[in-house]
Amino acid sequence: MNNKILNDLIKMFSKLPSLGPRSARRIVLHLLNNKESIMSPLISLMEEGYQTIKKCPICGNLTTEDICEICSDTTRNNDVLCVVENIADLWAIESTMIYKGQYHILGGNLSASEGRGPNDLNLESLISKVKEGNIKEVIIATNPTIEGQTTAFYIVDLLKGFDIKITKPAYGIPLGSEFNYLDESTLDIAFKNKKEF
Amino acid sequence: MNNKILNDLIKMFSKLPSLGPRSARRIVLHLLNNKESIMSPLISLMEEGYQTIKKCPICGNLTTEDICEICSDTTRNNDVLCVVENIADLWAIESTMIYKGQYHILGGNLSASEGRGPNDLNLESLISKVKEGNIKEVIIATNPTIEGQTTAFYIVDLLKGFDIKITKPAYGIPLGSEFNYLDESTLDIAFKNKKEF
Repeated sequence: MNNKILNDLIKMFSKLPSLGPRSARRIVLHLLNNKESIMSPLISLMEEGYQTIKKCPICGNLTTEDICEICSDTTRNNDVLCVVENIADLWAIESTMIYKGQYHILGGNLSASEGRGPNDLNLESLISKVKEGNIKEVIIATNPTIEGQTTAFYIVDLLKGFDIKITKPAYGIPLGSEFNYLDESTLDIAFKNKKEF
Repeated sequence: MNNKILNDLIKMFSKLPSLGPRSARRIVLHLLNNKESIMSPLISLMEEGYQTIKKCPICGNLTTEDICEICSDTTRNNDVLCVVENIADLWAIESTMIYKGQYHILGGNLSASEGRGPNDLNLESLISKVKEGNIKEVIIATNPTIEGQTTAFYIVDLLKGFDIKITKPAYGIPLGSEFNYLDESTLDIAFKNKKEF
C-alpha cells in the first residue's frame, strides 16, 4: 500500500503500547471500514479527552475537574499518603476499595538503564506535602521490581528527618496462585515473614 | 476511575480488533501521558484519514484519489481480475509483487452462521465487469476456509455462462513450514496434487 496517510496511520498505531504492525493494520482497516459508526465517534471522543482530561495538580491522577475526585473527597483520610509509580497503579489500588487515604503519583521510577533520575520524578512536591505537617503516614507502594525498590529506598532516605510513619504493603504469596508456579524470591519472602494462624 | 470520558475512551478502544480492556487502558493512559507528542498528532492524522481515505469505486481498495493506484495503473493487465475477500488480502498479494492484474474486493464472504448472504457482497459489480467483455481470466483468491470456499464455488457458478478462464491459487504445503506441524487437509491436498521434479 503506497498511500502515505494510510501508512502513517498504521505506523503511528503500531507504536502504541500492546500493538505491533499487524494489529495496527487490522485496527486502521477496521476504522476505515466503519468510518461513520466507529472512526468518527472515536475521533470526537479522543478530541474531547484531549481537551478536557488533565492531571490533578495535587496527586497527578487524571481528571476533568480542577482537582481530582480523590483529592477533593472530604470523607477520605488526609493524614495518609500512598506513593505510587503511575496512574495505573493508583487505579489498581482504588479498585480494591480498601484504601481510604490520599495518593501521590511519582510519574515513574528510578532507572539507571533508562536514564531516569530523581529529577524526573515528582519528589519535590512529595517533600512539600510532608513538610506541611498534616501527614502522619506515607505508604510507599512502588512496584516490587528492582527499579521500584530502588525508588522506595530513595524515598525512605528523603523522608528520614520527618516525624512520620513510613510503611509498605505486605509482600508474599498472591491469593489464587499455586506454589509450583511462584518465583523463588516471592516464596523466600513469604517464608521469612510467616505468621501464626 | 469514575471519569466518564476516560471510561468511554477505554471502552471504545477495547472494542477495536486485537484489543481488550487491559491493553485499551494502557493505550489510553499512554495517549493522555503524551498528549502533545502522541495524542494530538494521532487525532490530526485520524481526522485527515477520515476526510481523505475512501474506497475505490472500481475495486474497493482504499485510496485518497478518485480511483486507486492499482486501477489507474496503465502498466497493469486489464484482462485478469483477482477476486479477494477484503482489503488486507489485496495488500498481502500486492506485497509479493508477483501479480500484475486488477482486483475485485468482495467485502467479506458467504457465511450462514454470521448471516452474510450474496447480497452483502460486491457481486453485481463483479458480473458487470465480466459482462463488459475485456476480462479473460478471473482468479478467485478467497481464503481457504469453509466460508471462503463456499464463496468461491458460488462465484464459479455465477460466472459459468461467460467465456473466461476461472482459476484459483495453488493450495499445498507453505514454504518454511514443517510437516509435523501441518494440518491433515493441507497434507492431503499437497499429496493429491503432487508434481514431478
